Formats: sequence, C-alpha cells, structure tokens
Amino acid sequence: VNGKKKYSTKKRNGLVRASPAKLTAFARNLLQAWWTLALPTADASVIVAVSGGADSTALLLALDELIKTKRLSFQLIVAHLDHRLRKQSSDDARWVASLARELGYDRQLGRADVSKRAMKAGDNLEQAARRARYEFFAETAIHKRAEVVLTAHTMDDQAETVLLRLMRGSGADGLIGIETLRPFDSKSQLLLVRPLISWAKRSDTENYCRLRKIDFLADEMNQDERFARVRVRKRLLPLMQSFNPRIVEALTRTAELLRDDVAVLDRAADELLRAASDEMQKKRSETKSLSLNVNVLTAAPAAIRRRALRKWIAGGRGDLRRVEMAHLRGIEKLLEGGRGGRIAELPNGDLVMRRRGRLELRTRNG
Amino acid sequence: VNGKKKYSTKKRNGLVRASPAKLTAFARNLLQAWWTLALPTADASVIVAVSGGADSTALLLALDELIKTKRLSFQLIVAHLDHRLRKQSSDDARWVASLARELGYDRQLGRADVSKRAMKAGDNLEQAARRARYEFFAETAIHKRAEVVLTAHTMDDQAETVLLRLMRGSGADGLIGIETLRPFDSKSQLLLVRPLISWAKRSDTENYCRLRKIDFLADEMNQDERFARVRVRKRLLPLMQSFNPRIVEALTRTAELLRDDVAVLDRAADELLRAASDEMQKKRSETKSLSLNVNVLTAAPAAIRRRALRKWIAGGRGDLRRVEMAHLRGIEKLLEGGRGGRIAELPNGDLVMRRRGRLELRTRNG
Repeated sequence: VNGKKKYSTKKRNGLVRASPAKLTAFARNLLQAWWTLALPTADASVIVAVSGGADSTALLLALDELIKTKRLSFQLIVAHLDHRLRKQSSDDARWVASLARELGYDRQLGRADVSKRAMKAGDNLEQAARRARYEFFAETAIHKRAEVVLTAHTMDDQAETVLLRLMRGSGADGLIGIETLRPFDSKSQLLLVRPLISWAKRSDTENYCRLRKIDFLADEMNQDERFARVRVRKRLLPLMQSFNPRIVEALTRTAELLRDDVAVLDRAADELLRAASDEMQKKRSETKSLSLNVNVLTAAPAAIRRRALRKWIAGGRGDLRRVEMAHLRGIEKLLEGGRGGRIAELPNGDLVMRRRGRLELRTRNG
Repeated sequence: VNGKKKYSTKKRNGLVRASPAKLTAFARNLLQAWWTLALPTADASVIVAVSGGADSTALLLALDELIKTKRLSFQLIVAHLDHRLRKQSSDDARWVASLARELGYDRQLGRADVSKRAMKAGDNLEQAARRARYEFFAETAIHKRAEVVLTAHTMDDQAETVLLRLMRGSGADGLIGIETLRPFDSKSQLLLVRPLISWAKRSDTENYCRLRKIDFLADEMNQDERFARVRVRKRLLPLMQSFNPRIVEALTRTAELLRDDVAVLDRAADELLRAASDEMQKKRSETKSLSLNVNVLTAAPAAIRRRALRKWIAGGRGDLRRVEMAHLRGIEKLLEGGRGGRIAELPNGDLVMRRRGRLELRTRNG
C-alpha cells in the first residue's frame, strides 16, 4: 500500500468511498468481502452474532473499525444468546454486553435452556444450541427490522464442517459446507451472511483481537473432545496438515468448486420438479403438496431426480429432518413400477405413495 | 442361502446360469458385480493384473473359482509387470507366474525400469510405476486381443484415493475416485474394470486368500510411510474410523454420489463444447483443435464452462498433464474481454489465445 496517497477516493456501485489504506489488514479484508457480497454499506440494520470467542469478537471489532472510520454506516446490533449450558454463561453474556456498550452499539441478549430443548426435540446438544441460537437471531431481526444477520464463521469452521460431513458419507450438497450468503429461511427477506468464511482463518481472528488489545472468551466447549468438531480441530486437521500444510485452504477450495456444481444441479432439479408437477397444480389444495409424474422422474438422471425429490419432501413437510439417503432410495424403488411397491416411509410417519402414475406425499399433519 | 436347492438355474440376459449357492461368499459377490457390470461371461479374452498382493491374488483366485465351477468361461490371462524398484521384484514375478501356471492360466510378464522412466518424465515413482503398468496392460491386451483388463482395487483403495484428492483440494471430478468401469483410453474399445471396488474391503481379500490357503506377497512399498498413500492407510483412515467405524463405506458412498453428479455435469459440458465450437468445424485442419466462441462460453455457468475447457484442452493436447485450476482461471480471465488479456499460458509452453471473439489453442507440437 502506498502510504502517501491515503485518502484517494474510489467510485464503486455509485458510492464514493475513502481508500482503505489506513485500515488494519483484517478490516480491509472484511471491507473487500463486504463489497464482493454487495452488502448494505448504509441505511440498514445489521445484526452481528457475538458469542465472545475470538472469531465473533474479531468480527465485531472489525465492523467497529469500519464504522468508526466511516467506511460503513449502518445500525449495528450485537446479539448474544446465553445457552445456559455452563455455569459461567451469564458472565459471558455480561462480557459481550459490556464490550458492545463500550463500543457504542445496541445489544440484544437472550437466554434459552438448551439442555431442556435438546431433551424435548431429541436433538444432541450442538444441534439444539444451534437451533435456539438461530431462532433468537431471527426474532431479534424481526424486532429490530434488520436485513442481515452476520455470523463469524471462519475458513477453519468451513474445513471442519466439510470433514464432518465427509465422514458421514455426504454428497456434494453436504460437502459445500457453510454458505457465505443465503436467505435466513424460506419465509423472510432476511439474509444470513458469513463475511469471514472465504478469507479469515482462526489464527487471523485471534491475532486481530490481540492487535486491538481486546481479550476474547475461551469457550470450554471448544476444548471438549466429546464433541466431534473439537476432535476434528485438535486431531484430524493437524494430521491432514502433515500431508498438505495448506489443508484448510484446500478443503475450502473443494467446497467452493462443489458449490458451483450444486448450483447447476439444483437449477436442473427445480426444472425437473416443475416438469413433473405442472399439470397437477389445480389439485394442490386437495393433496397439500403437489404430486409428481412418475414417468418424468424416471427419465431424469439420478443426480437430478434425488435432488428434486429432496426439494419436494422439504416443500411438503417443511424440512428434511432425519431424511436420509435410504429414504430417497425407498422412493426411487417406487418408481420401478409394480415390483417396487406402492408405499415408502419417511421419518415421523410421513408417507410417499405411488398412485395412478404419480407420487403423492402424505404428511401426518397434512 | 437354501442348501437344498443348490443347482437351480436362473435366466439372466438370455443366459442360463447355475445358482451360485455353492460358491464362497467372495466369489459370489464377484459374480454379482460381474453381472451388474454386464461383463462377458464367455467367448472373450480377459486380462487380470496381478501384483501378487492380497487384493489381486484374491481376484485371480475368485475368477479361478468362477471359471472352475463354470459360472464364467473365457480365456483368462494373468499379467504382471516387474517394476524393478526392489531387489526381490523378479522373485515376485516368478511367484505370480507359478501361481498362474498352477491354476492353468496363460501368463504375460513384463519388465520396466520405472526409476529411469520417472527420471526421464519428471514423474514421481508412484506415477511412473502406474504409467508403466497401464502401458504394459494395454500392450498385452492388444497382443492377446483382449476386451477387458481387470485390476483388483478395493473399497479401501477408493477411500484412500478420495482422501488423497481431497487433501489436494480437488473438486468433484477428483473426488469420484477410481472408476468401476471405463474405456482404457480414448482410442480403443478396451475396457478397464475394477470388479472389487464397490463391495470388497482389503480385509475381505486377505481373508479369502487365507480361506483358499494361498499365500500372498507383502509389498514393502505398502509399508513405506514416505508414500502419502501409505500414511493415509496407516494413520489417517484409522483416526477417521474413530469418528465413523464405517468410514471406508462412507467415503465410497460420497464417491458414488459425486459420480452421478459428474455424469450430469460432464454431459452438459459436452453440449457446451459442441455449442461453442459448431460453426468452426471447417477450420479444424488449420488450427488442429477447434476454436471456441467466447460469448457461448461466457453465458454458461462456471461449473460447466470449466469442465468444457478441460475437455477442450485434453482434446487439443492429448492429455491434461500438469493443467491446474490456476490455468483454467487464466483462461476464464481471457473471457472477460479487453481487460482480461489476450493470451493464457498452459504447462509445457502451450497457449490459449483470444482472437476475434474466439479462443484458440496453440500446442507446441501442433
């Protein structure tokens, strides 16, 4: 960077911005990602999820750097959910709240009894914690009329996710890992964005916190080797690093390449779904979800058909919880005709039936 | 299996076959794979590559079991290449030859100075050995007028390959791993088939050799941790097994799912290549390889375009040796127009040029 020309301006998307020459490298990278993702730079409400760990603290501090130096100007809201999984979790919440207050941002704190929720829903603790957290962010977003929720996932999180899914035997749709930007849910306009995931490693977030002379919280759960993710971080990734020192970058690259593939296959699946359901639009009210033409499905390649079936089930049931490859194979058997049977079971008692050349989805609550 | 009904017959693909009730489980599985792959059961010459290790010895023994029990009847030829990488390699060749002779099959032995070839071609030993081996199989196939070459890759080989490619940052095309059945090369009708890869684990081949009371050779290279594949086998896979005891099956499943995806994407890439080159067919003789319409390429999704470019380069140069993602990105830059430059370099001095709205490939020997 040329130190002499600090405040040159640059026209971009119709906005005039100061050159980021005086920013820290970390904030500069975040600003670059912000531009690439075409996120709002002003006149918006943005929620940043902060646990208090190095990653989310760094994200908050870098946003603060960009706001204080006038590169970004929007209403930033710090959201923190106390999971009540550890005794000191309310201390953590207080720590995050006080950091947000010192920096001058609105803070939204929530509490959830994650253990209880996990028991109720039959989820494991990680799943239940995640679900509670994202529900809280969605509520906060509605309450604050926010357009964007930011989480501080890094390249390391991405690499861990890719490996965890690989070890479960996932296909491309799992191996694309954590998405950079996606709708928060199917109903709202809210965006869920991970502005660090394509460029920041965990070591970067830790170094940036140190540079800013701000402590971060050490989450004990991040050390607990009963969690598969922790074992991936502490054992598997270091071993893989002995094969390729840039293993995190390699796994991130694989996820990116697969994302391009999945985009194409997903579009083809949408088209197949349209082609297989078209003529039955009028029956929608009767069967709740559309029925699908068996012949159209049978003629399609397996890779497209399976994706279309997943979308169809998700549309009819609301989600794909517990739907595994085995269930899809069961539905594919129905397509084989007389010998393939007439009914395939889905988790929770939902059924897929073959009737008069079409597949019908019968949900328990449908 | 019902022991009372041993010799029931079954009509399949127009052939009448004895029930495989009396076969060992290993041979029965091989026969099932043989049928699924629609391989010739009679009136053919089939080459089986035998190193003398557990996998290839088991494959040879199981083929022998199926031939001796008249489930298969074709001319089986045992091929072994002495790589001359170890002192006792000629003993191995003699061992394989004597096993083939005892069983009553034709044997074809070859020798190659793999170290020398590796030096010459700039390959590593594994690559050079592989290349020498497959050249030898192709020559043997021509000499013996064989339709099929069999290699004894197992699910474990598949899992190792998937992991090695993953650690290099491969996309789906690498992660599909070893193919079950493919043309040996672009020129011939010869098939390269791995009849064990979808069902046999290494422990199965070892157990089957023991069951048949036949020793197998222990390849020292399989213990040498200087080879990445050996470290994957001895360190990485055991660690991953602590996450998922069926890790080999999981990785194999991922490879299979990705294979379905790649089949669809590959077909789309073939279509794109046709669409982008059509009008220039007549200029073929002048430029050696076809030129491609920039606008057609630009309009295509990245996942399809990159695959089309790889096929185009492979077609023009004969192979994709040393062509990396960075080279493809270089070519994609040419598509951006004036700012993207006019020339992209490929390994070995080949060039891709943008001229009058088309991409042209200039090979050094073209």
